[in-house]
Order: sequence, then structure tokens, then C-alpha cells
Amino acid sequence: MLDPQDPEATIAAAAARVSNWGRWGEDDVLGTLNLLTPEKRVQAAALVRSGVSFDLTQHFNTDGPQKGWLRRVNPVHAMLGTGLDAEAGIPAFPHGIGGADDMITMPLQASTQWDGLGHIFDHGKAYNGRRAGAIVTSEGDNTTGIETTAGRFVGRGVLLDVARHLEPETAELPDGFAITPEHLDATAAAAGVEVTSGDLLLVRTGRLSRARRSIAAGTGWGDYAGGESPGLSFTSLDWLRAHDVAAVATDTWGVEVRPSEFAVPTFQPFHQVAIPHLGLFLGEMWDLEELAADCASDGVHEFLLAAPPLPVTGAVGAPVAPIAVK
Amino acid sequence: MLDPQDPEATIAAAAARVSNWGRWGEDDVLGTLNLLTPEKRVQAAALVRSGVSFDLTQHFNTDGPQKGWLRRVNPVHAMLGTGLDAEAGIPAFPHGIGGADDMITMPLQASTQWDGLGHIFDHGKAYNGRRAGAIVTSEGDNTTGIETTAGRFVGRGVLLDVARHLEPETAELPDGFAITPEHLDATAAAAGVEVTSGDLLLVRTGRLSRARRSIAAGTGWGDYAGGESPGLSFTSLDWLRAHDVAAVATDTWGVEVRPSEFAVPTFQPFHQVAIPHLGLFLGEMWDLEELAADCASDGVHEFLLAAPPLPVTGAVGAPVAPIAVK
Amino acid sequence: MLDPQDPEATIAAAAARVSNWGRWGEDDVLGTLNLLTPEKRVQAAALVRSGVSFDLTQHFNTDGPQKGWLRRVNPVHAMLGTGLDAEAGIPAFPHGIGGADDMITMPLQASTQWDGLGHIFDHGKAYNGRRAGAIVTSEGDNTTGIETTAGRFVGRGVLLDVARHLEPETAELPDGFAITPEHLDATAAAAGVEVTSGDLLLVRTGRLSRARRSIAAGTGWGDYAGGESPGLSFTSLDWLRAHDVAAVATDTWGVEVRPSEFAVPTFQPFHQVAIPHLGLFLGEMWDLEELAADCASDGVHEFLLAAPPLPVTGAVGAPVAPIAVK
Amino acid sequence: MLDPQDPEATIAAAAARVSNWGRWGEDDVLGTLNLLTPEKRVQAAALVRSGVSFDLTQHFNTDGPQKGWLRRVNPVHAMLGTGLDAEAGIPAFPHGIGGADDMITMPLQASTQWDGLGHIFDHGKAYNGRRAGAIVTSEGDNTTGIETTAGRFVGRGVLLDVARHLEPETAELPDGFAITPEHLDATAAAAGVEVTSGDLLLVRTGRLSRARRSIAAGTGWGDYAGGESPGLSFTSLDWLRAHDVAAVATDTWGVEVRPSEFAVPTFQPFHQVAIPHLGLFLGEMWDLEELAADCASDGVHEFLLAAPPLPVTGAVGAPVAPIAVK
Repeated sequence: MLDPQDPEATIAAAAARVSNWGRWGEDDVLGTLNLLTPEKRVQAAALVRSGVSFDLTQHFNTDGPQKGWLRRVNPVHAMLGTGLDAEAGIPAFPHGIGGADDMITMPLQASTQWDGLGHIFDHGKAYNGRRAGAIVTSEGDNTTGIETTAGRFVGRGVLLDVARHLEPETAELPDGFAITPEHLDATAAAAGVEVTSGDLLLVRTGRLSRARRSIAAGTGWGDYAGGESPGLSFTSLDWLRAHDVAAVATDTWGVEVRPSEFAVPTFQPFHQVAIPHLGLFLGEMWDLEELAADCASDGVHEFLLAAPPLPVTGAVGAPVAPIAVK
Repeated sequence: MLDPQDPEATIAAAAARVSNWGRWGEDDVLGTLNLLTPEKRVQAAALVRSGVSFDLTQHFNTDGPQKGWLRRVNPVHAMLGTGLDAEAGIPAFPHGIGGADDMITMPLQASTQWDGLGHIFDHGKAYNGRRAGAIVTSEGDNTTGIETTAGRFVGRGVLLDVARHLEPETAELPDGFAITPEHLDATAAAAGVEVTSGDLLLVRTGRLSRARRSIAAGTGWGDYAGGESPGLSFTSLDWLRAHDVAAVATDTWGVEVRPSEFAVPTFQPFHQVAIPHLGLFLGEMWDLEELAADCASDGVHEFLLAAPPLPVTGAVGAPVAPIAVK
Repeated sequence: MLDPQDPEATIAAAAARVSNWGRWGEDDVLGTLNLLTPEKRVQAAALVRSGVSFDLTQHFNTDGPQKGWLRRVNPVHAMLGTGLDAEAGIPAFPHGIGGADDMITMPLQASTQWDGLGHIFDHGKAYNGRRAGAIVTSEGDNTTGIETTAGRFVGRGVLLDVARHLEPETAELPDGFAITPEHLDATAAAAGVEVTSGDLLLVRTGRLSRARRSIAAGTGWGDYAGGESPGLSFTSLDWLRAHDVAAVATDTWGVEVRPSEFAVPTFQPFHQVAIPHLGLFLGEMWDLEELAADCASDGVHEFLLAAPPLPVTGAVGAPVAPIAVK
Repeated sequence: MLDPQDPEATIAAAAARVSNWGRWGEDDVLGTLNLLTPEKRVQAAALVRSGVSFDLTQHFNTDGPQKGWLRRVNPVHAMLGTGLDAEAGIPAFPHGIGGADDMITMPLQASTQWDGLGHIFDHGKAYNGRRAGAIVTSEGDNTTGIETTAGRFVGRGVLLDVARHLEPETAELPDGFAITPEHLDATAAAAGVEVTSGDLLLVRTGRLSRARRSIAAGTGWGDYAGGESPGLSFTSLDWLRAHDVAAVATDTWGVEVRPSEFAVPTFQPFHQVAIPHLGLFLGEMWDLEELAADCASDGVHEFLLAAPPLPVTGAVGAPVAPIAVK
């Protein structure tokens, strides 16, 4: 199923096996998000018991992991007015009111985000067989822009804490560790949770936890952004298709294992199938730490998950502030 | 209660009446968001019946209403790589993978957003009596930054479509129309919905609908941003305090009626009490059109509302992509 | 020479007449800037008599003429630290030092600027016959990026104040006025100045003066950016080629007359020949007011001109702060 | 003159010795730029012999030295339209014209720049004794903004290549090397050049050359931005005042030697005197390599220098593309 010497052929075969092209019509722009039906939201709401909620976001600031690759810098937040200005009467407002304002500049994939369907192409083809250049131009993604998902990203979330299951002592998988269908099944079985069609699947690898230990030790993010990492095996693509998840998010920079499982140089082969062929939404750089600790504690690994990306018109990816409610 | 000639005294009196300073302790940073308890999320989840969801966002792009006041320009979305580049082999990636990337620059209050508690001050004081200049500097809001709300903004949403209730033919209130407690009560009564402690209240005025008709007619946004508008009466502050809502959002630029109900020049007097004294989160430029039409149709004006602002560290306001689920 | 009904044919014929393709070799990236030789700088230096200098820049701020067309917003300048912060000890520095910092976000063609040679194409061809898509991608202009001009833009400047010559009372030409070779020659003759090979030619139309009167009257910039304007006639292309100027700049948004001299809808036909075929650098939104007044006063219309664009790697245009020295 | 244990006292004493407060009137905003008189421009023009010119700019792109300190990221250049788009007919223009556009986001001190007089304060005081917080707010520097220098930065440039003089083999000074008045005098004497009132002084340390060797070796910029470096000695302040230079620029991140010559922790003590007390303009991150090689070759170390900062209204520093002409 995976020829380590031949990524091209392996990718092509996987694409053929898992493709969702045409499944929801040739005009479809939602891909696997079609699977997140109203019924899934009813199912998700029924999972809310205590109402306790969890932030799954790495906050947005200049202290992030980005190092400038592909011009991806960290978010720059700047004030346009402050409390100090207000105290000084700037700007001049009547009757004692004062205000502060601010702005942000950031690559849309700088921190916690969803990849849109226009983010990755396979041999010039985007999701549903569209020409990459016909849909994503300098004016943005005119067909599968992230705004097409607006109002949809609320559903049943399932956490598979593979790291904690396989490495109970450290709760961290080593870099280069490929999470296979067997690992996913074993983790789900141990958690007593079933991954079903339309779920928003969260897979924890412990990579963020390791980066945070590095930061705490004064050695910074290291290669969290774009370096080696545990992640989903290329072979998990079939599993994701079989389980028909609506989206999958992890605590890593790039969802998939790095370096890849091929013996020759590759770049994100899992992405090359997952986004254009499966039409699968990938969530990157999520913070699953607090939620995972809670799930380990109460043994409940399913919850309502609200994760609407910021609907920037034509965006091929977008920041998100996901919330899980148990 | 409102002396049209004396905003200073009127504001001071209202602030004294509705103040939440100290209510949740002197270190509190959440204000009315304290009222959005886990129990409210349980209550909200129980409102999900069909699972149908609604996007409440004005999408983020250069075609927005901003005109540069306070350097608030419209969001600028720029591609860092496109499908056309990918087709041309740029950047050079192996085995046929290609990608697109993008970035955004925007004032945080350019479109659909939440005001944070550090956004407005009264005579140099922020929420809970803090010195404006002690908490909001060029490094951001070091105390009540919007990231402190992360993981909390999911709860029971209630829509009061005052415009449709009072103006059933047009479903639009005229500019300068002040929505009073009586209007809110009447609208709630007619809708058969009760506003309770910890709710996320949505008030529809029809102002966005009017702007959209103007755009469709080729005359643009007009003064949607910063011009005249229907909105909450200054007198609604007591009502909001009495009902202990967790937040209130509208389909207008600035929540409150413009021009104000004072006979002398003022600037956002409702804000001056609501944010620093009530500690109330205000949602601006929301798109309530589709949700309101559905509520008018099925008569159900309550729902689960997920509205997590993008947690930009230290931000005094933040964009949000709210979703309502019924 | 100009068929009002047939811009395509007229443009093609002009392109054939004035083309500089191959003139400086097939690898050339400098176009008419080749004409600005060291000898021209010697000539320019000899023009410095009093040492009085003139700023030719419209300063960069949010109060500029841009209205968002093609996502061209006005420059947004934001502080990252202020004197108020420094007084408050932010950031914390030793021994009483304090500092302020700032940032800018702007379209490179937002205000006073040079068009680079990668800015405009004719039927997909850039200067010297290159494929537009082969040189200007999302990674920037890999061949004629503005940085290739670094160190060159100092030379002999010549001002032709056509507005003052033709309209001595108002010193403003009406919108739609096309400046022809005859107007240029007459203005030069009256000024007693000769336009020679390698000159940096400045042509004043009075359009900025008119915009400033509008701003002073409270009616704002109007359509300075992209609206009607006096400017160079399409027929001036041959004159510019015959005189072999190194560059030409004006006080208008787009150098050329608007609307164009064609009877059918067009878009910047002068640009379509000037940049890709002539390889001519065009300067837009320059402020020639103070310099022009001085030239009118002393009768001297030639000077040393230093106008180095900010060398943003791969840029197709760049801001510039030109200085004239007499 | 420099008590290694007592930066406070040393700084205060130097400030008292070299202060220019009041020298050009209490309303003065130009500081040492007052010394760059029209006569200096006449003198500079007379230095132009061959007309050969030199770019002194480190170009602006994401591959710069910044690492995010004080939110100073590297410049991000993004295309708003490309040649690939134009070939695809985007945007739709008539008669075969196509275009490309772009934008930039950057801290104003990201690369080659001038520090403005509002950039640094001493115990809350800016140049000419003004209160830091009274002039530099979130609205920018309302008094000494960089735009006040517009039209002035053309004059006589003098290069003192201290590195090549002291280290003829490597032409690089070691990090921590403090350039004293004696070094400056010796270098000038060897070069046969005199530094006179109103000059734009360039001091080469070789620090950029060393960074470039590091980049070429694959080890990147290292700590060019904010790390150790050769630079001007604190004791050179008196020399700069005695010679009355209009400005001084170097090939380093911060002009002054790092670490400083004090035995206790300090931060940019030279700046603390130079900018607020001397009112001296400091140029940072200039590229003097090509010019210095030429000066070493022909023995001529003086030239016309045009270095107008981009006049961003209210900026406390600004990028510049300096050109030297010999």
C-alpha cells in the first residue's frame, strides 16, 4: 500500500482509493464537511453534560513558532490607540469617554487554523477535479474559499489521545512516529469511543507539549513549525475515508508524520491526498492539552466541538478558536 | 433617568446604578462573561433540536464598510501563493504536490467582532476600576485582553428581532431609533422567549439589511460605519443589568442608537457605561439576517450560540465567526 | 496615429514604433534607466547652484486618496511603542532610556511611487518580450523587480509645468486634458529648457493642486485615485521615445489622461505601451507644487533629482521620496 | 569620562556636554539636520566626478535579520496580482493590458533606515527637552515625525572605513570593538579626508560582511539584529558633537558597540545621548560594502549622498534607499 521508493505511485493509488470527487456532485465545494449534517449537531448537543468548556487555541501573538518559511511570520498585533493615550486625551472625545483600538497582520496559517480545500493541489488539481489555477488566483479562492464553510463547523468532536495511550508515562510520541489505523483503533477502543461519519476528529501526538517544555527550558520552539514531528501515517488516509470523518485536527504543525514514511525526499504526501482527493479539512497547531487531560481524567472522549474558521473571503486557510464543550 | 442636556451626569448616574465592579472579585477580568456558566451551556445544548446552523458573520474582505476613521481600513487579504503559481511549479515541490497560502491585515474591529473589556474607558477607568493606562499599553491589554475569554463563548443565544416586531412590513428600524426596555420586553413577549441571566442576547435593528439594499442599488455602504443608525437606547443599560445578559450583539456598527438621545454632542455614551462599568461584551456588525428569517418562520428565538473571538493576545477587540444552532 | 475606435490597433502600432526590446540586449532589466548614465549624474551635479532642495513626496498616511480599488487601501502606520509607554516604563529598560517603534502596512502603489517594469503587460508580454507569468509570480518579479534599479535613480531632472504654461491663471489643466508633444515642446521652449536623453522628466498638470483645494473645502480627495484627470496623451509616447527620457513622473494618479483619447472603453492604454514596450519608468502621485512654484519664480526648470525607490525585493512598484536640488 | 560602573552618571555627564537643546530654537524639530545646509549640497555636488553611483541598501524582504524582538519581524512582501493572473485574464481588462500589484507590511526599522528624533528618550525627555509622552503617542510623533525631514537628506557623504583601516586583511572589526575618536581620526587621516560640519558620516565596521559570510556558510544571520557587534564607542559622542555631523550611519544593527563599554548591564547608552540630546540622526543596517571597496580602490572617501527616508507621517524611524554618487 506504501512503496517507500515510489511516492508518486503510492500517492496516485491512494488518491484513487479514497477520492470523494463527484460524491456530492460536481459543483460541491464542501468536501467532507458534507458529512457534518444537522443530525451530527443534534448528536453533539446531546453530549453536553456538565457544560464545562475547553479552549483549543494556541493564542495569536509574535511569540509563535513561525520562522518565515514561505513568508509565514508570526502574527503582529499592534495598537492603534491605548489606555495611555486615552488618559492623555487622545483622541479627543467628549464627556470622559476614552477608547483603545488595535490591528493584526498575519499569515492565515500562522497559528491554530483550518486548511481550506484550496490550500493543496495534486498535479495541478484541486478538490473535485478543478484546475488549481482556475480557482485559486491572486484574488483568492473563488470556489472553495473558506467562507463557503461559514456556519457549519459545529459538531461531534472525538479525541484520540494516541500519545497518552501509547506512551502513558510521557504522553508524547517521538518525532517521526507514524500513527497508523491500528494505533487509531487501539486508542479508540481503549477510550471506549467510536469514530463515526461526520465526526470532527482530534488526534493528540504530544508534539505541542514537547515544544512547550523546550520553551520553558529556554530553548524556544525549535522546529515545531516545519520540522520533525509525530503525525498521521500516510496509511491512515484509508482509515479516515472509511470512517468518513468531516475533519481531522492535531497538535502539530502539519498533521502528518515528518519525515514521511517514504525513503526518498517528499513533501507532505498525506496532504496531497487528503485535501484535493478526500476533500478533507485539516486542523493544524491546535492546543489539545487541557482537553486531553480532562478526557484522561473522566474517561469521556467525545464532546460538542465548535470550530468556525474566520470567514475571510477567498482564503485557502483560516485561523480558528475552537471550543469543546462536555 | 436621562437628562438630554447633561450626558456627564446621566452617564455617572447610570454607571453607579449598573456597575459590576467588585461583583466577581477585584481581580476579575471576565465581567458579564462570568454569568455564562457551564449550566448555561447545558441549557443551550438542550435547545438544539434540528441541528440546523446559521452563520452570523459579515465576511472579511476589502468590500467592507470601513472608511479609514481611526485608521480602521477594511481587511486586506493577500495571497502568498496561488493555484496559478502551483501550476507553474512555484514553489518547487516534489511528486506533484502544490499549494497556496495567504495572509491578512486588518483592524481587529473592521468587521463582525466582540469588543473586549479593554476597548472603552470612563474618565480613564477600565472595567473593575483599573487605570486605563495601567492595563492597555502599546504592548496590548495586559489584564483583560480578549484571550482571557478563550473557551467561554458558547451559550444560550436569544434573538430579539425588534425591527421585525415593530416594523413587520420592512423589518427595518429607522436611523436614530432608540430601542428601549419597553421595546425589548414587547419583542420578547411577542416571541414568547425570556431573556435570562447569562444569555448571549442578539438584537436585530435592520440596519444591515438597509445597507445591503444600498449596496445592491449601487450606492454602497453609505455611513453604516460610524453614521446614523437605530440601536440600543441609553436607557436599556438598566434592563441589561437587570437581566444579567452575558453579552449583547447587534447588526449595527456600534450597538447603540446614533445620534444619541442627548441634545448635546456625545460619543457612544452607552459604551461608556456598558463596557467599563457593566463589564459587558458588545458584539458589532453581526449578520442576523438568515437567523432572523428562520426565527420569524418557526417562532423559535432561542438557540445554542458559539461565538469564540480570535484570541489575539492582548487584543481589545477581536473578530469572530458566530454560529447559531437550532 | 490614434484611431479613436480601435485601441488594439493603435496600441499595437505605437508599440511597434517605440519598442526598446533588445535595444540593450535580451537580458536587459533596466529599460530606459540605461539612459541615465554616469555622465547624466555629472551633468545633474553641475546644475546644483544654491543647494536649495525640494521634497516631491505626498507623505504616507491613512488620509491618502486610495479607496480600495484592487485592494489598494491607504497606508496604515501603527505604533509598536510610544512616548507614553516609555514614560510608563514600557518596555522596561535600564538607566532611564526609553524608545518608540512603529510599523507600516501599505500597497506599494498607495502614494508617491515608481512603477516597476513588471507592473504592466501587453497581451501577456512584459518588457523585453518576457512572458508575464514567467517573471511575475506570487514570489514577486524575479527579473525586473524594483531592486534591480537600486543605486541608479539620481540624475538630471527637468520640470515641464504644462499647467502653468497653458493656464497661467489657475495653473491647473482640466480633467480629460491630453498633453501632446506640441504642449510639451511649447512648455519646454517657454521655460528655455531642453529635454535630453537620460533625463528624469517631471510633468505638472495641476491635478494634485485641484485635489488639495477639494480637501481644503471639506469635500475630500474625490476621484483623484482612478478618476478623471489631465495627463499625457497617448501620442506623447513617440515624443518620449524620441527624447529618450529615463523616466517620467507626474502629479496625477496615473500619468496618462483619463478618460483616454479613445472613443471606446479603454484602460490605461499609454501604460500598455510605455512600460512593457518602451521599458519606461513611470512616477505617480508626485507632489510637484513647491518645486514648480520655485521654477516659475527663478525660471530654472532643471535640477539634480534623487529618487531612489525603496528596494523591496521583487516589487513591481515602490514608494519613493524624491528630492530635487537646485 | 566613562565610569564603567555608573552608566547613569556617565550618560548624564555626556548629555550635558554634547546637548544641542535650544541651539536652533526651542521649536526646532530637525536637530543636527540643521547643519546640512544648502551650502553642503553645493559642496556635495562638486564632489561628483565620474557620476558612478552606489546603492547602500540592504533590500527589503523576508530573508532579513529580524527575529521578532519588540515585534520587529522581517518585511513581508505580498502580491495582489501577478503576471500569471494577467495571463489568465485576471483582473479583466480590455485590449490586452494586464497588470501586477503588490503590498508590504513591515516594522519601519526592519532594515536599512534612519532613526527619527522621536525614537529614543532619556528619562522621558525627547530632543529639545520635550516630554516623550507629549509628542509620541499612538497617533505617531506629532512633532518630530520623520516627515519633517522631507526634502533635506542630500549632502556630503564621508566614509570612514575603520574596519579596513585597522584590519586591512579582513576588513572586519571583532564584535565588542569600540570605535573611539582616535580610531575615527586615524582612519580619516589615512584616507586623507576631513569630517566637517553638516556631513553625513558613514562608518564601516565590517559587521555586515561577517553576517554575509555566515549566511553564505549556511549558518544564517546569527545575532546581527540585536547581538554583539563592533560599533561607535560611547566616547565618540563628544567627537560627533565637535565635528557637528548632520547624521551618522553604519553597517550594523545599532550603530554603537555591543556589548557596551560599561561593566554593568546597559541598553544602547550611546543612543540615549545621541538622539535626544545631540538631536543626531542615526542610520542603521546600511550596506557599505560596494562603496567601501570603491573608496579603497580610488582613495576617494567623500561623495554626494542622497538618503531621503520614506516620509511616513508621524514615524519615529523610516526605511531609506541611500545612494552615493562619486
